Amino acid sequence: MKKLFSLLLLLAGSFVFAQIQKVEPPFWWAGMHNPELQIMFYGKDIAKYQPSVSNNVVIKNVVKTQNSNYVFVTIDTKNISVSDFTFSFKDKKKTAFTQKYSLKQRKEDSATRKSFDSSDMMYLIMPDRFANGNTANDNDKNLKEKADRNIPDARHGGDIEGIIRNLDYLQELGVTAIWNTPLCEDDDKQHSYHGYAQSDVYRIDPRYGTNEDYLRLSAEMKKRDMKLVMDYVTNHWGAEHWMYKDLPAYDWIHQFPGYSQSNYRMTTQFDPNASKIDTKQCMDGWFVPSMPDLNQSNPLVLNYITQNAIWWIEYADLGGFRVDTYSYNDKEGIAKWTKAITDEYPYFNIVGEVWMHDQAQMAYWQKDSKVAAIQNYNSYLPSVMDFTLHDAMGSVFNENNPSWNDGMIKVYDNFTNDFLYPDVNNLLLFAENHDTGRFNEIYKNDFKKYQMAMTLVATVRGIPQLYYGSEIGMAGDKSKGDAHIRQDFPGGWAGDKNNAFTKAGRTAEQAQFFDFTSKLFKWRKGAEVIHTGKTTHYLPDNNVYVYFRYNDKETVMVVINNSNEARTFKTNRFAENIKSHKSGKDVLTGKSVGLESEINIEAKSVLILELK
Amino acid sequence: MKKLFSLLLLLAGSFVFAQIQKVEPPFWWAGMHNPELQIMFYGKDIAKYQPSVSNNVVIKNVVKTQNSNYVFVTIDTKNISVSDFTFSFKDKKKTAFTQKYSLKQRKEDSATRKSFDSSDMMYLIMPDRFANGNTANDNDKNLKEKADRNIPDARHGGDIEGIIRNLDYLQELGVTAIWNTPLCEDDDKQHSYHGYAQSDVYRIDPRYGTNEDYLRLSAEMKKRDMKLVMDYVTNHWGAEHWMYKDLPAYDWIHQFPGYSQSNYRMTTQFDPNASKIDTKQCMDGWFVPSMPDLNQSNPLVLNYITQNAIWWIEYADLGGFRVDTYSYNDKEGIAKWTKAITDEYPYFNIVGEVWMHDQAQMAYWQKDSKVAAIQNYNSYLPSVMDFTLHDAMGSVFNENNPSWNDGMIKVYDNFTNDFLYPDVNNLLLFAENHDTGRFNEIYKNDFKKYQMAMTLVATVRGIPQLYYGSEIGMAGDKSKGDAHIRQDFPGGWAGDKNNAFTKAGRTAEQAQFFDFTSKLFKWRKGAEVIHTGKTTHYLPDNNVYVYFRYNDKETVMVVINNSNEARTFKTNRFAENIKSHKSGKDVLTGKSVGLESEINIEAKSVLILELK
Repeated sequence: MKKLFSLLLLLAGSFVFAQIQKVEPPFWWAGMHNPELQIMFYGKDIAKYQPSVSNNVVIKNVVKTQNSNYVFVTIDTKNISVSDFTFSFKDKKKTAFTQKYSLKQRKEDSATRKSFDSSDMMYLIMPDRFANGNTANDNDKNLKEKADRNIPDARHGGDIEGIIRNLDYLQELGVTAIWNTPLCEDDDKQHSYHGYAQSDVYRIDPRYGTNEDYLRLSAEMKKRDMKLVMDYVTNHWGAEHWMYKDLPAYDWIHQFPGYSQSNYRMTTQFDPNASKIDTKQCMDGWFVPSMPDLNQSNPLVLNYITQNAIWWIEYADLGGFRVDTYSYNDKEGIAKWTKAITDEYPYFNIVGEVWMHDQAQMAYWQKDSKVAAIQNYNSYLPSVMDFTLHDAMGSVFNENNPSWNDGMIKVYDNFTNDFLYPDVNNLLLFAENHDTGRFNEIYKNDFKKYQMAMTLVATVRGIPQLYYGSEIGMAGDKSKGDAHIRQDFPGGWAGDKNNAFTKAGRTAEQAQFFDFTSKLFKWRKGAEVIHTGKTTHYLPDNNVYVYFRYNDKETVMVVINNSNEARTFKTNRFAENIKSHKSGKDVLTGKSVGLESEINIEAKSVLILELK
Repeated sequence: MKKLFSLLLLLAGSFVFAQIQKVEPPFWWAGMHNPELQIMFYGKDIAKYQPSVSNNVVIKNVVKTQNSNYVFVTIDTKNISVSDFTFSFKDKKKTAFTQKYSLKQRKEDSATRKSFDSSDMMYLIMPDRFANGNTANDNDKNLKEKADRNIPDARHGGDIEGIIRNLDYLQELGVTAIWNTPLCEDDDKQHSYHGYAQSDVYRIDPRYGTNEDYLRLSAEMKKRDMKLVMDYVTNHWGAEHWMYKDLPAYDWIHQFPGYSQSNYRMTTQFDPNASKIDTKQCMDGWFVPSMPDLNQSNPLVLNYITQNAIWWIEYADLGGFRVDTYSYNDKEGIAKWTKAITDEYPYFNIVGEVWMHDQAQMAYWQKDSKVAAIQNYNSYLPSVMDFTLHDAMGSVFNENNPSWNDGMIKVYDNFTNDFLYPDVNNLLLFAENHDTGRFNEIYKNDFKKYQMAMTLVATVRGIPQLYYGSEIGMAGDKSKGDAHIRQDFPGGWAGDKNNAFTKAGRTAEQAQFFDFTSKLFKWRKGAEVIHTGKTTHYLPDNNVYVYFRYNDKETVMVVINNSNEARTFKTNRFAENIKSHKSGKDVLTGKSVGLESEINIEAKSVLILELK
């Protein structure tokens, strides 16, 4: 009786055909640098079946986890051309179900694609808050959070179509690269508009558009010679991620068990005195309870996010990554991730968020850092953000009467440690971003201070980044919550009374900000001497900061007078850079400025002189 | 007639015997590592004579300068034993005058002498303000400034004899090394008491005593197993220096011509963007008009100060140098100076004043710095001062309710960059020195805050330094001028009403400070685990900072509660260091503290637990 019952159960079991619910990556490409491809098949008890594959494709290994709903099959794509083939899953000797899979044709020069660099101006957009190009996708019946512009923290309906429609506006502004905050599905119940709690990393959130819309954005940008930069989140997913709800393995995420908050002390990642418990808490603790922390030291996890990242580059023809919370990841894991991507695309640029306040600590995370080499570490991350310049810009323009450390000396000091960075041209420069107070709030929309700040980020070494709306004077107070620094761009929604996207629609103040910004960055676009030139700077005197960018052909002299008085100063101090030049043409006014004796400069103003 | 007159002049000239006024170094030693010795002879028109030397001593070269009153004769001492020999100066073939010279016997093990290290506690004395042991030398008829205790900035009469008489006091305090501010002759008209404007670097200022008194101090200290650390000034001399009044060469000092003030911006020494003019102004500019800036890129200057330094080590049997304004010197020159000294004495310690506020910048100047290696620089300086710890200690003990960056996290953060330093055990730790506000002024003689600060410098990695008088609660306000932070030690002068040098003479408050300091540092003297142990520290929680010093044999747990409330915390967080220890014995109270569950600690207090 007992035996018969067992037999019946066994028979019953064999009749439950596993349905494949997910295959990830959903397809791949022939001729990749790394020939190994690990395909994840997800379906009820799929691990109980034996996978095989057609077309003589070689299966290198099959990995099963604690959860029988997953199987990870690694194939060798080295000798496979563009083709479709079929995976079969057998129960004993019988094929229970099959799955087609494709290796597609890569775009020409995909591997050697160029990426954003110091010749670019990067514009940071929160897509939900920029422009609503398609009101039909404001809500999605399968996704929880609904659009309501009356609720600051809710979704407002901005989307990919909204960005596409305003590419000409951005081009007029001088933008050459766009970093959107994450666009993949984020099905969080609230605050899903920011996209950092992703629930499906192979799918654009339908409230932003479709995967095809994202490809269209990429193609439209390419037409305008602009680079599309994806905001990639390696550190965590959202608690609504489908895999979190059916974890492949207990250690797919960091568990304490479950949630424990990060201590956010990133210094523990290199501090030789740090306790193990603090180091672990920083790296493995969760950012917030709604964001399960991925365990990149699990090779399956690492491979999953590596392939996902490469998939997006290849699929959407990307021009770069911005990586969220870079220095909170598993330190070794994130280096492998970064190296794998740059091995695949040697000229691909990736800028990591390393939010620290010390140049040695930030330099630690840049590729080939000599500082990190002290500990035999190499992140392979090409670019980091110049957070200490941001720190300085947060107060300096209000410092009219500088002491030893105040005023423009604070800005000057930021560059004195440049030798710590392996590549200063690959630092992202910003006065603000989506996580900080807005510049025009801190400085009460003082146009002269905005001019000084933008001149700085536009003319020192590195890659300038502008946060959406600042170019028309948008303000926002971080102390009033994130929504306050992420307000809707005026004109992005039908019916907006003020439309700052058009010349006719701008207020006088918006026009003043826009026209200056546009002039500055359109000039910068063609100024190779700014992109790659050397720098010589001079100790600020009386709150006036003077520096030169130069190469064999050209010299640009920048003067920033941060005092609230006009200044006159002799030019002979700058002889080593002025050399035999007699005058400079001011980029902003077109006027010629003599260099043979003295320069006069108004209070709180700038000169950007192309030396003649 | 004209010819006859010329002949008479010539004859007259040959009869003017040049008198040798100075020979420096005045003597030397046989068997030095570097066999070359460059002897400077100074006398009226001495360069016109031909030098030769007896005893088959080989003259390697003779260097003359623009000033005919100097000649520099380099001899090879390699094969010369201890001996006296004679230099002859010939006019044509006739010996005009002679000069005896001695190579003396070195002390045994002189070359391998030990020096101050992390097992020491270094006590910083301003000799003029410490104790007047010999009133007969308060004034010197040949030196300008006179003693007057009623004038804060004048000389007060303290001297070497005063130090010698109080060595037992210092020993009782736990002192094992003494750094005196400079003792060589400083004939400045005012402020000569600080000694940084030296007028003769081969002679102890007679108002401090004689060269022999200095040797006696050294010998008395040696008896007590204490190290004598000389404050060496490579960067500048005083304007009253005899050589400044008759410069060997125009470029013996930095001239613009004459004085030009340093910009004091030491970052220019490594800033890749710095202008040449700013870099030069920092390095070559003078500290103040009364201190001509030495040109260490002139090989004669470099050799002069190198030999002078070595002379003092060998002559006075020194146990270390403190070097003033280290990072203002000619960058390459000072590295050569430092290397020459440590080549001669491989275990000799030299701590440089590198007054910066960034760990990467300070680490730059320590020997074998990987940070400096980025620019292929090596200062060869064994030790630097932990100025950023000093910065933190200047405010942290008043920060009762810490935010993200305040309170003990500020102290913790100071150690997170320890990996930048090639040798963290060779950092000088101090709450104050003769150029800063006094700790007990900043903290209004709050004994609990003093306890926390001293515990910190006594138990973290590095070499603790105590500034004279703080151990009895001396205060002093930097904003009221240097004299205010350099007041006379009570009891150092006959007739002082309060004599803090003796137990009987101390006030109750002085006794409280002294007894604690003495207990702490006498314990530290024997605590090898503090001298060379490893460190693990934990993120401060609620303003309580916990760290461990440990080696294979011992573990010390330090708890600093900087909040103004008593705290109770669980010990399980510290399991990786507590291991199987069950209790700790408090160094300060002798009480046993259980470690199995919780620790209680009073507000603003410390525990130093030897784990059992």
